[in-house]
Amino acid sequence: MTAPTFEPKNPDYAERVRSSFERQPFMALIGAELTEIAPGRCEIQLPYRPDLAQQHGFVHGGALGGVIDSAMGYAGYSLAPAGASVLTVEYKINLVAPADGERIIARGRVVRAGRTLTVTRGDAYALKDGVETLCATAQQTLMILADTPDEPR
Amino acid sequence: MTAPTFEPKNPDYAERVRSSFERQPFMALIGAELTEIAPGRCEIQLPYRPDLAQQHGFVHGGALGGVIDSAMGYAGYSLAPAGASVLTVEYKINLVAPADGERIIARGRVVRAGRTLTVTRGDAYALKDGVETLCATAQQTLMILADTPDEPR
Amino acid sequence: MTAPTFEPKNPDYAERVRSSFERQPFMALIGAELTEIAPGRCEIQLPYRPDLAQQHGFVHGGALGGVIDSAMGYAGYSLAPAGASVLTVEYKINLVAPADGERIIARGRVVRAGRTLTVTRGDAYALKDGVETLCATAQQTLMILADTPDEPR
Amino acid sequence: MTAPTFEPKNPDYAERVRSSFERQPFMALIGAELTEIAPGRCEIQLPYRPDLAQQHGFVHGGALGGVIDSAMGYAGYSLAPAGASVLTVEYKINLVAPADGERIIARGRVVRAGRTLTVTRGDAYALKDGVETLCATAQQTLMILADTPDEPR
Repeated sequence: MTAPTFEPKNPDYAERVRSSFERQPFMALIGAELTEIAPGRCEIQLPYRPDLAQQHGFVHGGALGGVIDSAMGYAGYSLAPAGASVLTVEYKINLVAPADGERIIARGRVVRAGRTLTVTRGDAYALKDGVETLCATAQQTLMILADTPDEPR
Repeated sequence: MTAPTFEPKNPDYAERVRSSFERQPFMALIGAELTEIAPGRCEIQLPYRPDLAQQHGFVHGGALGGVIDSAMGYAGYSLAPAGASVLTVEYKINLVAPADGERIIARGRVVRAGRTLTVTRGDAYALKDGVETLCATAQQTLMILADTPDEPR
Repeated sequence: MTAPTFEPKNPDYAERVRSSFERQPFMALIGAELTEIAPGRCEIQLPYRPDLAQQHGFVHGGALGGVIDSAMGYAGYSLAPAGASVLTVEYKINLVAPADGERIIARGRVVRAGRTLTVTRGDAYALKDGVETLCATAQQTLMILADTPDEPR
Repeated sequence: MTAPTFEPKNPDYAERVRSSFERQPFMALIGAELTEIAPGRCEIQLPYRPDLAQQHGFVHGGALGGVIDSAMGYAGYSLAPAGASVLTVEYKINLVAPADGERIIARGRVVRAGRTLTVTRGDAYALKDGVETLCATAQQTLMILADTPDEPR
């Protein structure tokens, strides 16, 4: 059950992921930061802000879902061929503990990269006083769109 | 396959849902509006804003997931006993079309209300030029926490 | 929230679904019966047998998942073009009550039929003393494989 | 991202899991074998038989879902207190490759064990000519029922 290793099809994968992330206004709105990109893996961090909270003061599931979905999606995008883009087909997320911390760390990784569909998993941790606690875990399906640049219309 | 009808256990269910919704800073951040609450049903609308978009200019999956998760959760909360609160255990969401419209309309409804667990479904539509197009569909599990007020800590 | 209606692309859809169902040895092993096929809809019934049970005497989740997955898959297959076949990409199922009855009735229906991906939902009911009780509810993603006959190798 | 280790609450966990498995007629019908049980982990194998196949000759998703659901469920059950039983609340499964092999090996493991709810993951591999190929990956929610013996009624 060791993690698979992947060869990127596009040598510019990291640049491409960073550029796409920067073109997402919603990621800027919530203050998410792309902190790591590697072939088949991506980490996004979300510093706590009071306006990201739900009624109990913890990070809202919508903000949490947004960063974990993006971390999984960019993990998949890192393996896509040049000129392709990636769409989230669906995901499933379990919220296993309150998202209670100074920041959320969402990590996505590819489970299986196919030509048309890619399956990923992701985990989100709440970092509090230096300790990471798992707060959400997810599984996602992506569709790879060949020859469809990931650019604004 | 007609929708089930439900009797609320708490006559103040609508007031309670509205109060909880108003205590969610993340819903205010993204500009979501609670537009309907009925026993076992809830509708939340999200007017389009450029800062809610992903890289293609459509509403980001995180914002979409946030409103559909909340619409399903409040549908379940409307049937909870007085003094109880509700937690999202997990949900699964399919993104079936771009969230392209002047506003997103998310509708949640209870499929089965149990004592400990409640199962809901939700659909989100993009409203554009007066036409609603399904853009996401979801299924959710909620946990009912008896004697646990839904209040900030 | 009325159910969408669909036009089949292949006039022989019913014959094709029945033929595919009959070529599934696992459906014969568990005794499943294809009881209805219509454009975008399919019903499969599973009469109770003691060897389909789990440890409490109710129908096992594996048998239940098998018939609900198939009912959803054939609902999608009914709308596929001639010469295409259909693969289950993934599904999510909530088991909401014991599958306690003389037979299980699984009904699948298409939520959105796309060119490459189709999203379906399904419900399974336990029929006991003439009363249907919802025991499982599911959501599924299918992939349409054009020009890939659904035949044994 | 190393796997968590768990302390069983019931020293007789292995005996209890084996006894429950043997009381599932459906597992006997399909020929599934419980091949490993450890705290928070379970492996179930399913030797190939022609009557387990779908229309292409591979193991049917229903049989596959049945063994992966059971492997995840028994992984969770291994950590439950004495006198408790475990119910599958829901699961989500991605079928990522044809289940093509001499046997299927399904491995479940606990991601987070809670007092009421436990979250697990599972993977199924097709073993062919000595090589394991991932064919399905799943995520599950279990409910722990205290003081509810896992016995036939």
